[in-house]
Amino acid sequence: MNQAIISALEKFTELDEKISHFNSILGLLSWDQKVIAPKKGRSIFAKANGTLRTEAFKLSVSEEMGELLSILSSKESEDYLDDEAKAKVRERNKFYHRSKRIPADMIKEFSVLTSQANDAWEDAKETNDFERYLPYLEKIVDFKRKAIEIYGYENHPYDALLDEFEPGLTVEKLDPLFVKLRESSSELLRRIQSSSYKPAAEIFDQPYSVNQQKEFNRYILPLIGFDMEAGRLDETVHPFAQTVNTRDVRITTRYLENNVRSAIFGTIHEAGHGIYEQNIDPKFEGSVLQEGASFGIHESQSRFLENMVGRSEQFWKYFYPKLQEHFPDQLGNLELDEFYRAINAVQPSFIRVEADELTYNLHIMVRYEIEKALIAGEIEAKDLPGIWNAKMNEYLGITPSNNSEGVLQDIHWSFGGFGYFPSYSLGNLYAAQILHKIQQDVPEFYDSIEQGNFAVIQNWLKENIHQYGMLYTPNELVVKATGEELNADYLVQYLEKKYSKIYKL
Amino acid sequence: MNQAIISALEKFTELDEKISHFNSILGLLSWDQKVIAPKKGRSIFAKANGTLRTEAFKLSVSEEMGELLSILSSKESEDYLDDEAKAKVRERNKFYHRSKRIPADMIKEFSVLTSQANDAWEDAKETNDFERYLPYLEKIVDFKRKAIEIYGYENHPYDALLDEFEPGLTVEKLDPLFVKLRESSSELLRRIQSSSYKPAAEIFDQPYSVNQQKEFNRYILPLIGFDMEAGRLDETVHPFAQTVNTRDVRITTRYLENNVRSAIFGTIHEAGHGIYEQNIDPKFEGSVLQEGASFGIHESQSRFLENMVGRSEQFWKYFYPKLQEHFPDQLGNLELDEFYRAINAVQPSFIRVEADELTYNLHIMVRYEIEKALIAGEIEAKDLPGIWNAKMNEYLGITPSNNSEGVLQDIHWSFGGFGYFPSYSLGNLYAAQILHKIQQDVPEFYDSIEQGNFAVIQNWLKENIHQYGMLYTPNELVVKATGEELNADYLVQYLEKKYSKIYKL
Repeated sequence: MNQAIISALEKFTELDEKISHFNSILGLLSWDQKVIAPKKGRSIFAKANGTLRTEAFKLSVSEEMGELLSILSSKESEDYLDDEAKAKVRERNKFYHRSKRIPADMIKEFSVLTSQANDAWEDAKETNDFERYLPYLEKIVDFKRKAIEIYGYENHPYDALLDEFEPGLTVEKLDPLFVKLRESSSELLRRIQSSSYKPAAEIFDQPYSVNQQKEFNRYILPLIGFDMEAGRLDETVHPFAQTVNTRDVRITTRYLENNVRSAIFGTIHEAGHGIYEQNIDPKFEGSVLQEGASFGIHESQSRFLENMVGRSEQFWKYFYPKLQEHFPDQLGNLELDEFYRAINAVQPSFIRVEADELTYNLHIMVRYEIEKALIAGEIEAKDLPGIWNAKMNEYLGITPSNNSEGVLQDIHWSFGGFGYFPSYSLGNLYAAQILHKIQQDVPEFYDSIEQGNFAVIQNWLKENIHQYGMLYTPNELVVKATGEELNADYLVQYLEKKYSKIYKL
Repeated sequence: MNQAIISALEKFTELDEKISHFNSILGLLSWDQKVIAPKKGRSIFAKANGTLRTEAFKLSVSEEMGELLSILSSKESEDYLDDEAKAKVRERNKFYHRSKRIPADMIKEFSVLTSQANDAWEDAKETNDFERYLPYLEKIVDFKRKAIEIYGYENHPYDALLDEFEPGLTVEKLDPLFVKLRESSSELLRRIQSSSYKPAAEIFDQPYSVNQQKEFNRYILPLIGFDMEAGRLDETVHPFAQTVNTRDVRITTRYLENNVRSAIFGTIHEAGHGIYEQNIDPKFEGSVLQEGASFGIHESQSRFLENMVGRSEQFWKYFYPKLQEHFPDQLGNLELDEFYRAINAVQPSFIRVEADELTYNLHIMVRYEIEKALIAGEIEAKDLPGIWNAKMNEYLGITPSNNSEGVLQDIHWSFGGFGYFPSYSLGNLYAAQILHKIQQDVPEFYDSIEQGNFAVIQNWLKENIHQYGMLYTPNELVVKATGEELNADYLVQYLEKKYSKIYKL
């Protein structure tokens, strides 16, 4: 027995727990300030919040943490650490080294820059003035390029960013997946557009009582697997999911009188995130492993529930009568089949967050390719409006009439979130692969949905995905759950099959 | 310039800010877990909460804090510290020395004991079984007696407990105030009971729609001075006020269909606490001075608003028509004058929290005298039921038929909160003294209320009480605001005048 290692492991576990407790509190604070805090108190509270965030950060990159990680990452330690401890060391190591490499001055400067950039972006989007945003965007790109040189990478500089959101993923692995998805989606889109069949999507162009919407959403949420005693549903302008701990997961939605789909599919989407976290094994509480495996895996859970389940025929076979009861004037005379096709209508549009299931990925491809080239220095920030519009035209067949509905629409770059966008399409890819596997393991999958039995789905997801938290890397997890690495064929086939039927191709 | 002092002051200010930020966060967490957190997450979150609480405590009693306080409390430091810095040092010193003196083992043991005692108290109250609670109560009394010997005191051991809730207060100062209040209240109660006039309190013995109650409460809250953009109103079984910061003050109330008074006066009471904190000078944010001056001063603000304002004739001259609109069936035919007398009906009863404005203080006297004698070793815990009932009979003329409605009714002793009860009556005493002064400074005081103009009241309170936070000790503050030390005559005269008129004595 090596006493030094055992003692280091004890100290590490304690320190990891303290940081994780602080992060759990920071999660609650973030939710509170976004959802519930009175307006005038927020700027004051930001200081208290900052004090705790700084404290958690300092502990994560402390000398003590460095020493413990160095002992626990050594060859001799291997025999003393179980898988759980190894995963904790892996995750803490990653954060420690990433954060330590960037000098404190640079971090501080970047924090000021992104705060200004966010204001500039808001202004620019509102006034359709890309030039207002450009100087900040240029500086952010510069910073990211510098940071990447410090982090290091093997092949493509963008790998360093991918790794932050999807550990282990590289451009080399991702490019063929995304190219296949992009080409097949564009091609499918063209066939859909030349189909003579048009779903009756105009049924959504009328008011739907917000109170009735609320009632319907609150009705379906527990039925699809979200535990209301281990979570909450609130309202915000931008819906999100926030975990406090695995038995306190809070999601939000928004109700628009003129867009009944927004709340329904928004709620199901966030429920997918929420159910994931509600089913993480409680033994990971108070450790770095207490969260989902990655952004992509998380997104796979929200999109699986929203699209593969929530936009399926079988889902609405069960729920449509109840929806009709809530909206007899709007839907009383509409057949289930027509409703199903209407909620799956495909229509190229400018705004990513309003896109349908098929064109959504094309929006991501525009962003992915721009980010990759920008980070590699192949293009510059000033060229983005033109490149954006050209790619939109190439992939979706439409050209934004201004930058507000084009390159300025997303907040992500203003806070330096390069590398984030791919997660959304990764989520779709993972989700389709999971759907394929779950249908093999549970052949009655869609029959269960039709009978309103979601337990069989949630049990499979809990067993194969949810329970593990951050124990496995995304790649390990997907191989363990589905038997193979990420493969774009499943999503391509799923989309082909689904839309061929809907659009009678 | 003494560099060591200047540098110590800087470090102290930083450390004080960090602890205060953590306390602000702990305030929010406490509110969240009581009001809004999903059931299943709470026991998990308690650990994260405990980690932060421990961290804040450790910083407060750290070696660094000790050294800084020792420098900043020295004679040489005096010229370098302004009043604000001196007040911060005073408060941190108090906490530091109080906490440091009790050995860590003893604190830990007490924490286990009170947790068990609380369970035992709940059981005992439910089953009317004092013996179930007694062994824990005895141990708590033992602990308190020991702790007091460690803290030290000049005259009466109870002084050490009073000092915790009302800094600087002693039995020697308090006894004559409370004796005067008790004797005059008992005497006034006897006269009221022999009066032939009886208010029409039976109008409250009928259902009042909870929805209408909510609407009425939300209507009056901002009008009486509570800033809804710097606070919230929620519902809990036990109403309370919780400050996050001076622009985020959250109060709760409860609505009982069969007790319309409960929500109205509960809301006004908590609003009094809330408005106090909303008006503390923001310069005290992020320091130990960011809260109210003491428990007694805080209670003076809630009781001033609840009783002196909210139970006044003029208040209801303004609001009664609106209340009648909300409850036409119940109050449509009741004259304002009868309503006013009904909300001020005096009726001795067993439960403190349901007592009227006059008999409330007699409930406190029972507790104060018992606590004082218990702490001094003049009586023992086992004797409490008999002593309690005898005193209830002596002061209120009624004897509880069992211990659940007698000695077991309050939670306070189960967590060791000896010394807390006097704050309630101190609040009433301060409130009456403030009322006397405010009427001298603002002769149109009650006329303003009658016109629904609460700004004149809130401005006076802000100017003379609220803004100072914890800058002054309670005694300094009351002298500064009213020109003299606490004097029981004002409350005695106020009660005499009010009830003489109501009961036509």
